[in-house]
Amino acid sequence: METIAIVGVGLIGGSFGLALRRAGFKGKIFGVSSPASIQAALVMGAIDAPISLREAAQTVDVLYLSQPINQILETITVLAPDLHPGALITDAGSTKQVIVKRAEEAGIAEQFLGGHPMAGKEKRGVQAADAELFAGRPYVLTPTTSGTTLHEELKSWITAFGAQVVTMSPENHDSTVASTSHLPQLISTALALTLADDPNPFASNIFGPGLIDMTRLALSSPDVWMSVLDTNRPAVRRALTRFVEYLGKVEIALDKHSDLEQYFSSASEYASRIRK
Amino acid sequence: METIAIVGVGLIGGSFGLALRRAGFKGKIFGVSSPASIQAALVMGAIDAPISLREAAQTVDVLYLSQPINQILETITVLAPDLHPGALITDAGSTKQVIVKRAEEAGIAEQFLGGHPMAGKEKRGVQAADAELFAGRPYVLTPTTSGTTLHEELKSWITAFGAQVVTMSPENHDSTVASTSHLPQLISTALALTLADDPNPFASNIFGPGLIDMTRLALSSPDVWMSVLDTNRPAVRRALTRFVEYLGKVEIALDKHSDLEQYFSSASEYASRIRK
Repeated sequence: METIAIVGVGLIGGSFGLALRRAGFKGKIFGVSSPASIQAALVMGAIDAPISLREAAQTVDVLYLSQPINQILETITVLAPDLHPGALITDAGSTKQVIVKRAEEAGIAEQFLGGHPMAGKEKRGVQAADAELFAGRPYVLTPTTSGTTLHEELKSWITAFGAQVVTMSPENHDSTVASTSHLPQLISTALALTLADDPNPFASNIFGPGLIDMTRLALSSPDVWMSVLDTNRPAVRRALTRFVEYLGKVEIALDKHSDLEQYFSSASEYASRIRK
Repeated sequence: METIAIVGVGLIGGSFGLALRRAGFKGKIFGVSSPASIQAALVMGAIDAPISLREAAQTVDVLYLSQPINQILETITVLAPDLHPGALITDAGSTKQVIVKRAEEAGIAEQFLGGHPMAGKEKRGVQAADAELFAGRPYVLTPTTSGTTLHEELKSWITAFGAQVVTMSPENHDSTVASTSHLPQLISTALALTLADDPNPFASNIFGPGLIDMTRLALSSPDVWMSVLDTNRPAVRRALTRFVEYLGKVEIALDKHSDLEQYFSSASEYASRIRK
């Protein structure tokens, strides 16, 4: 891998460029993005030069698609006719089945490797990019072909960022993030909405620090989430149904201490486990 | 107010002692607690001396009950017969109606002022006490009598800590915290429980930083929460019902972007508002 083009130089794309550089990548890092993002990314050293999508498809070794999901889908369709046979395309979209399917439909499945870095920040845009964003976090890859040496090289770089590469099927990825990411997002949004609509004026000022944690995800922008949820609806619905079931169990247990204590202790054990 | 006895010298009680001292309180601060907590509180300067509950009731100006709710209830009953007529009792319990009612039943309603500092930490115990714990946070008082000069003095000290004193009825307090505190706690517990029971092994390691926020409250210890929930069950059930309704609306809106965007934006507006 000697050249890479980051398509969509925002928080994730910019961080990928910075992390590559920090890890010792000597090749050229191109960027396909808005003029403002390109300018900021050049100043920060996240990319070396701008490039058009077409030229990137025709010449660059790895294309890294880090746009919102709906744009990733469009980019795949648009670049497919120009893609040179030695290139690898990977992406950073939050759902995988629909994106992988689009690569198949565009006839470039053999050159596509789905990816999803489980990293993020409240802030968006390349200005918030950070070479350490992926460190200590899982980075999911969803290979559907046997892969080339470029696959292996890409994996090595991700590992060099300090991320843990986890290989899963696109289906398993989507059902997992429905529970661990999309469900918490919708819960946070619904909680904030419940309180926003509360006729009690104290619902906006009498609260402890816990509510701040529980509503941080509610600050998320809808434009990112629309296409995430659109491309994972059945799994998100299953996750919501399971959660409501468990919330119902907790409600019933309000009258039965032994059950409620058991629930608190299982929940606490899980919450401790994911912090290790 | 020249003397105060903190009954239950843990995170809240210890912080109250430290905050009083920091704010310039010149009187004597006594502690009623376990030998280990008394020892630690003496070393930290959160209290000046230990005292028995009986002696405190007979001699001290203000008794500050900062125990778990079930113990506050017991303390009220136990100290009532010894209480000298000039004393004020206040508490820091997370629900107010049952505690205020207990003071009435014990015949000391005229000397009782319910309180609830909306402050906390993950860590418990006097070792985690902090003079700044109340700063910038609401501190609810639920007076049910016209009050004495001791009421006013106590309020002035709390204001001197940098806290905002908010006066509410016990009923209004309990219904507010059911929505802003008890509901988020049960949601966090139910979310962690849903994931703990997930047969998918990736549910414990493929997640983003959002899940860490959403499961922090799930780390809470059940022994504190049992008596909180026990003493606020009807309001907690109403809050749960409302939340499930809103979660249902969000679920339906997965098929309708205009509604979903509206929900995300109302939720985000609320989440921003409570951060100001």
